[in-house]
Amino acid sequence: MSLVEMLSLDELSDGLANLPMFPYFEIAHYVVSVVALREQPGAIGLSRISPLACWFSSMLHCFGGAVLSGLMLAEPPIAPLSNSDNILLATFIWYLIFYCPMDMFYNFTRVVPVRVVLSAMKEVTRTWKILGGITEAQDKYQDNLLVMIAVGWAKGAGGSLISNFEQLVRGIWRPETNELIKMSYPTKITLLGAVLFALEEAEYLPVEKNHLMLFYTLFTVINKCRMMLTGSSYFPFAPMEWLLFEVLFMGRLPNFTLRQICGFIMVDNGRARVTRANKDWRENRHNCPSPVRGTRRGRDEADGKKYK
Amino acid sequence: MSLVEMLSLDELSDGLANLPMFPYFEIAHYVVSVVALREQPGAIGLSRISPLACWFSSMLHCFGGAVLSGLMLAEPPIAPLSNSDNILLATFIWYLIFYCPMDMFYNFTRVVPVRVVLSAMKEVTRTWKILGGITEAQDKYQDNLLVMIAVGWAKGAGGSLISNFEQLVRGIWRPETNELIKMSYPTKITLLGAVLFALEEAEYLPVEKNHLMLFYTLFTVINKCRMMLTGSSYFPFAPMEWLLFEVLFMGRLPNFTLRQICGFIMVDNGRARVTRANKDWRENRHNCPSPVRGTRRGRDEADGKKYK
Amino acid sequence: MSLVEMLSLDELSDGLANLPMFPYFEIAHYVVSVVALREQPGAIGLSRISPLACWFSSMLHCFGGAVLSGLMLAEPPIAPLSNSDNILLATFIWYLIFYCPMDMFYNFTRVVPVRVVLSAMKEVTRTWKILGGITEAQDKYQDNLLVMIAVGWAKGAGGSLISNFEQLVRGIWRPETNELIKMSYPTKITLLGAVLFALEEAEYLPVEKNHLMLFYTLFTVINKCRMMLTGSSYFPFAPMEWLLFEVLFMGRLPNFTLRQICGFIMVDNGRARVTRANKDWRENRHNCPSPVRGTRRGRDEADGKKYK
Repeated sequence: MSLVEMLSLDELSDGLANLPMFPYFEIAHYVVSVVALREQPGAIGLSRISPLACWFSSMLHCFGGAVLSGLMLAEPPIAPLSNSDNILLATFIWYLIFYCPMDMFYNFTRVVPVRVVLSAMKEVTRTWKILGGITEAQDKYQDNLLVMIAVGWAKGAGGSLISNFEQLVRGIWRPETNELIKMSYPTKITLLGAVLFALEEAEYLPVEKNHLMLFYTLFTVINKCRMMLTGSSYFPFAPMEWLLFEVLFMGRLPNFTLRQICGFIMVDNGRARVTRANKDWRENRHNCPSPVRGTRRGRDEADGKKYK
Repeated sequence: MSLVEMLSLDELSDGLANLPMFPYFEIAHYVVSVVALREQPGAIGLSRISPLACWFSSMLHCFGGAVLSGLMLAEPPIAPLSNSDNILLATFIWYLIFYCPMDMFYNFTRVVPVRVVLSAMKEVTRTWKILGGITEAQDKYQDNLLVMIAVGWAKGAGGSLISNFEQLVRGIWRPETNELIKMSYPTKITLLGAVLFALEEAEYLPVEKNHLMLFYTLFTVINKCRMMLTGSSYFPFAPMEWLLFEVLFMGRLPNFTLRQICGFIMVDNGRARVTRANKDWRENRHNCPSPVRGTRRGRDEADGKKYK
Repeated sequence: MSLVEMLSLDELSDGLANLPMFPYFEIAHYVVSVVALREQPGAIGLSRISPLACWFSSMLHCFGGAVLSGLMLAEPPIAPLSNSDNILLATFIWYLIFYCPMDMFYNFTRVVPVRVVLSAMKEVTRTWKILGGITEAQDKYQDNLLVMIAVGWAKGAGGSLISNFEQLVRGIWRPETNELIKMSYPTKITLLGAVLFALEEAEYLPVEKNHLMLFYTLFTVINKCRMMLTGSSYFPFAPMEWLLFEVLFMGRLPNFTLRQICGFIMVDNGRARVTRANKDWRENRHNCPSPVRGTRRGRDEADGKKYK
């Protein structure tokens, strides 16, 4: 990379790092969060029966990360309420999305380019949220890696992580699933970000913070846009996740030692014919649920049926 | 108002403001709270199976407000336990109500005049609870209106707001409803009080605190007595609530603009004949649940059947 | 007791009080806790579907006491995560128990002598946990007996007390029971210990702390070994518990006054023939559930069937 490119990279990442989140990016975050709530079954009915429960649920969607990280660090979970500007903005957007005459605002957010731009902007706020959580954790627990990751993750993906209790506010209770059992894409990507930023803060990663912010933000934004435009929900790290899963969490099956599994993966990439042993193993795989394959999809369908 | 009346109002409100809550009003609060628990289905059975769960549930009924506001402000939710006098008093009353030989104490509280007096005294404690919550919130967040309202409300109506988790202690789980979806009368009146006192504390209301305390307490006491003696559960602000609800939260229905609804309300008060358009609208209303009308009552009955 | 015996008792109790918990006793605690999780229905399936939920659930089993007492005292519930050594150790043990090739580690822990030794060592950590909780409570609330008992109990038996929420992490929700309604042996014994140590700390008990630690630890260890070796789940204080229960919590039944009950117990020990009145009473007893008799066992069986 030439000096000129280096300079422009520095400039770009500094520019991003100094980008103010309030109000435009925050607005995008609130719109996307409240629209996500509105598109859940039963939400519109609730908004007619109890605007207060609907508002509270929306606020948990918008500020769930702050509430959860507050609870984890024994700071008032009510703190987001004290930030009047943000709350008023979020309340205004909640009102527009649920009660705007002719549903104009919601229909406007459904226009594809608008939705893509808003989602991309929301992804940008994720970086700031994760970093905010990590900084809070550092204030209390210095460079403790696990705490930094946990709080950063909670702050960035709080709305999803507390979804069971957010649903309870709306009178819905789905104990059979949660974000830990079945992680959604945003939760995964936030966990990845929290790990990266925590490693950087603890000086295990030899990159500058601003550069990492730039690359992580670019990655999440591009990936989100790709997913929205192509309609695919393909997670870019799925093969890595799968390998890690197979290597680490399959040890107990007596027939397959780690060596066999790793060997299979390395060998299988280079040849078409599958030996008998490998074939058996492939069949067995289908009996054994893993987070990136078949059974999961089957459970989703079952869930869907149950709640439709 | 003449000077004499003014003086007597000041005296009266100062007298009320200096009224000590401990022990008589606190006793009334505990008695009414524990009796409310005892009259829930399954509570007597639980008191025979597990006195500890029954005691814990009773304490949540008595001190739920302190527990909830403690959680919200990141102060120990166990704090009420440290107030030995109040805990011992509440425990003694819990014991009398559930285990008194011949059920004498409970039968005594069922005598109508006793019950009315106790309920009236409990209403008085509500004012103090709300003010306590608002003061706590002010200590942490200065004059932030939303936090003051939230903590005041939580402190005043905590037992109801955490009812889902209080029921869980007793092995009962009713996720399909909660106080936000279906607000009960005490919760509503406490929210109203929290708003009024918070506005007063933030100096938006041109009244003296002591006068407001007097008027709010008188209002809740008289209203409670009226409700108990006439058996009606009519909420005095229902028409206002209904108007607010229709104006604010009906905008999305394409057929009815705000102007139409407001016009209808203003016009309808003055004449008996209903035009066709209005009639249609009235019919439509029944398809659209609102917190003060038909559908709500229907759901109550359904709930009742489910849990009997 | 002669001077020599006294000296050796002092030496023994001082030796026990200075015993370091880390790493051997902590290891035993983690092994027993995680094995308890693994032996619950559905846990192995979960470990294949979502290692993260399984890990989080295991950590709640290992550090539930610290999490619960943290919540109660408004200290960060995330604090156990900051203790890297303990977390890494617990994570390592979790990994061995769920994913060890050939299931060697788990099979090793199932060998009876190993299991007995590990369980005995885990019982030793209970004493330290209770004392830790009581000390924390004392820091915040001086010698307040109720708070000390509550926090000591929470710290010692936290994993059981939060079991409803620990199960929720694994997608299981059993609201119809909890540790308050149906106390398990470890929870009972921890409550007893919390009461004893709190009384000692508040100087109501005329014993030295080290002696009490020795006696309580010996009692729990011996009792646990006896229960494991004989397979009986007999609680040594069951008769006392029963008497207390009948005397305190049966007053409401009009037919049996306290005197009759106490008289029956005292008389019945000395003779074989049962008079008619007593016989009636015995029959009545079966209609009235109590925590140490029939009905309880019936409910257990019903629970068992429901969840198999």
